[in-house]
Amino acid sequence: MARPSLRENIVEAAVDRFHAHGYAATGVKDITDAAGAPKGSFYNHFESKEALAIVALERYGERRRFDMLRDESVAPLARLRQHFEFLRDENLDAGFTRGCMVGDLAVEVADHSEAVRAAVLTGFTYWREALTEAISAAQEAGDVSKAQEAATLASFVLNAWEGTLIATRTDRSARPFESFFTVVFGVILR
Amino acid sequence: MARPSLRENIVEAAVDRFHAHGYAATGVKDITDAAGAPKGSFYNHFESKEALAIVALERYGERRRFDMLRDESVAPLARLRQHFEFLRDENLDAGFTRGCMVGDLAVEVADHSEAVRAAVLTGFTYWREALTEAISAAQEAGDVSKAQEAATLASFVLNAWEGTLIATRTDRSARPFESFFTVVFGVILR
Repeated sequence: MARPSLRENIVEAAVDRFHAHGYAATGVKDITDAAGAPKGSFYNHFESKEALAIVALERYGERRRFDMLRDESVAPLARLRQHFEFLRDENLDAGFTRGCMVGDLAVEVADHSEAVRAAVLTGFTYWREALTEAISAAQEAGDVSKAQEAATLASFVLNAWEGTLIATRTDRSARPFESFFTVVFGVILR
Repeated sequence: MARPSLRENIVEAAVDRFHAHGYAATGVKDITDAAGAPKGSFYNHFESKEALAIVALERYGERRRFDMLRDESVAPLARLRQHFEFLRDENLDAGFTRGCMVGDLAVEVADHSEAVRAAVLTGFTYWREALTEAISAAQEAGDVSKAQEAATLASFVLNAWEGTLIATRTDRSARPFESFFTVVFGVILR
């Protein structure tokens, strides 16, 4: 009988270890130890650490509440703000440590693994499209100027968020979030 | 007689290797090999890889042309644009690989080394202050609205730049730069 729970434990451990320590600093044994799995069992479930990273990225993405961006019971601009507040609160709960795992793997691995780069690109593309739809809806509602294309604004805001997380873990303070919300909702999306 | 050139070679090799491969993936031996130095000589010059990373960060920062932001022979808004064009062109020359080494070390190491976090913070603070001065000068010249504080705009634009580099290495294209210049110079700094 297959043991799906062991594979599942390995995926969860990988999300946690990659997010907390990065890709290169996390060995297969760190992951199997954290999963309570024998090291030898790893390769029954995954071809490589790289293959596991791709599954871990998908799992991480599923928890980023992209559904909030598409919840039509909330006004589009409010949806956008609530989405970034949700992500900010996650970071506050982590004491300003850990960034976005997608961005972290982009920084550390994208130049060296085409497979990881492709998975990161898929994640960012999905997110950017959800942001574009919400910004476009805010433009249609008359809450955001149509002077710039929604896709351009969405791409920029996503990138600004990723850089804001770099700043919060450097500064260990919420000040970078304050700049983000002030400029995104006070200058860009209006 | 001391051999400053060996130490110098090690610093240059560290800037190159950390920038290209990241911190955890670069061993002391990778650096001494690239420097043409015997591995054993490393600890005559540096206490640890961490200590070398701090010197490498300083060296990297010295080459980021922050002087452009303070060149009063150029109008402040033009200075800001030329500064980011200089940084963009560096990335284009690298074929969209490599990010900002300061941001890379923030992502990979800041949560795990107080010394590296402090060096990253020093680098970002110096840069943010130079951006703040230029934005403030652009506000005084009447080219940028005073509705938001220069320091808030500078912090946000710096973070947006760092995230834009994450996007270029993921997308391997100049599109994230286009969004950056469109929104920063078409929406924020006006």
